[in-house]
Parts: sequence; structure tokens; C-alpha cells
Amino acid sequence: MKLLIAIVQDEDAGELMQKLTKSGFQFTKLATTGGFLRAGNTTLIIGLEDERLKEAISCIESICKSRKQLITPPIMGGAGEVYLSYPMEVTIGGATIFVLDMEQLIKI
Amino acid sequence: MKLLIAIVQDEDAGELMQKLTKSGFQFTKLATTGGFLRAGNTTLIIGLEDERLKEAISCIESICKSRKQLITPPIMGGAGEVYLSYPMEVTIGGATIFVLDMEQLIKI
Amino acid sequence: MKLLIAIVQDEDAGELMQKLTKSGFQFTKLATTGGFLRAGNTTLIIGLEDERLKEAISCIESICKSRKQLITPPIMGGAGEVYLSYPMEVTIGGATIFVLDMEQLIKI
Ligand code: NI
Ligand code: NI
Ligand code: NI
Repeated sequence: MKLLIAIVQDEDAGELMQKLTKSGFQFTKLATTGGFLRAGNTTLIIGLEDERLKEAISCIESICKSRKQLITPPIMGGAGEVYLSYPMEVTIGGATIFVLDMEQLIKI
Repeated sequence: MKLLIAIVQDEDAGELMQKLTKSGFQFTKLATTGGFLRAGNTTLIIGLEDERLKEAISCIESICKSRKQLITPPIMGGAGEVYLSYPMEVTIGGATIFVLDMEQLIKI
Repeated sequence: MKLLIAIVQDEDAGELMQKLTKSGFQFTKLATTGGFLRAGNTTLIIGLEDERLKEAISCIESICKSRKQLITPPIMGGAGEVYLSYPMEVTIGGATIFVLDMEQLIKI
């Protein structure tokens, strides 16, 4: 069996958990804060059979793949000043997955 | 050596940690929220010698085994209305344990 | 590859994360509370190549090694009472590192 530790962005976590549940994967969500990835990450621990490893990784990939997004930064100005705000392209998403071999998964 | 990741219900966590400490197991508590188990779970990381694996699992089992409990739901009523509340049987407890082989446990 | 789960004291976590980043290690910080170590711990998950294991452990050791510190407890007194507070030597620092073999580290 395999144990995956998947670190994903908070904004992808809800959708990913829905997809994992639908696909019959078992997981637990840990509260996380970012390290080399910026703050706002969610860590999932996923236990699965060896033969479903590729499927689990595709599942995470389909939801969490990094993509470009246009954001319009908020306008900040002092008294009487006006700043124009232009849309900016930012990269969001991405995930880091640690794959470990697991000896047993025990349910009590 | 083995590393156990044990996900237990919050209401069992205190008693389990006492028992693990008394039995000389070393563990760390992580803050967790539920995934496939309902919210309100605690995750413990436990490091142990191979030969104590059965004992550790029995220890968790003895505290966390799922059991029936009678709860009396709170009465909710609007103005002038009366609702009778009957005791209901619910299942509580249970645990998921991921068993991994660990290469080293280093103390600094 | 190796996966390290390192449990360090909160007061060492910031400096350790800086050093790990500078040394090119990849890690994620989990929110943790103490078990056998007292409350106030931080858990880091670090993924690395086998050949950098010693270096990673030295890195943690250099920041987190336990050491003596003098603290002066705050003076507590009731109305009209005076208590003298003397510096006390306490041991701080220390770390527990779980070393696991990791099959893959996948970045999406
Ligand atoms: Ni396996
Ligand atoms: Ni072993
Ligand atoms: Ni390896």
C-alpha cells in the first residue's frame, strides 16, 4: 500500500477532497501553514492500494495543476490621490506529493 | 522501527495519550480536522520498536474502539411549541492507523 | 529519497526554516502541539535526496541542540508583599527526527 502526503493550495483543497471522496479514496486533512510554498496550504494524508497510485496522482493533478489567473489588485490611495489598478497575471495552484510505502492500514 | 500515524476522535485523544505515555510510547500530537472521518479528529505520530507494534495497536484499540452511546438531542421549539426529545443511539470512537517502516528515530 | 518529520521547539522553528531554505532543502510546516515534548512544538516535513541526509540532520542539530539558558521568573506578590526573583537555569531546544524512506517526490 502507499501513503501520500499531498500539500495543496487552500483554494484547491475543497474541490480535491470532493473528487477524492467520489473516487473512493480515504484521506485525512491536516492543518498546515506554508514553508517553501507560500502560506495557505492544506496537507492531505491519503492511504491507497499500490495499483491506484497513478489514479490518485492524476486526480490531484487534474484539480491542482498550476495555472495563470488574472487578478486586479485593490486600489490603495491616500487622501485626494487616485491610483489606477491594472489586472495582473499570477500563477496559482500546484502541489507537492510525498509518496511513501505503507505496511498496513488498520481500521478500528 | 515503525512510525504510526493514528487518527482518533478528539474525545478519545486525551485518554489515549495518557495510556501511551504510561506505556512508554513516544508520540506527537498534530492538529487535525476530519476528511473521510467527521471533523473533530486528532492525529498522533508514534515512533516505536518493531516488537512493540502489536502492543501499540492494542493500546489504541482499547481506548478508541467504536461503541454505541445514547445521546439525548437538545429540545428545540418555537414560542408555545413543545417537542419531546428521545435518547438516540449513536456510534462513536473508531480510529485509522497508518503503519510505516521507519529507518531512524533521532533525538537531538 | 528520504522524508524527515522533524519536531522542533517553536522558538527554534524560524531560524531553522531560514537555514533549511538557504541550504536548498524543501519543507512544509505543520501546526503542532506537544505530546511527550511540551506544548509549543513545530513539525516540519522535509523531502531530500539520500546523500543529503547527514547534512539535513546537522542543519537541524546546529539550530535546535538543547542548551542551558538563564531565565528570570516574573515576580508575583500580593498587596504589600515583596518577592525576590532569582535567575534560574532551564534547558531549552532539542528535536525529534523521524527518518523515512520515500519512494517519490512529485511536483505538480
Ligand atoms: Ni505497498
Ligand atoms: Ni523497522
Ligand atoms: Ni530513498
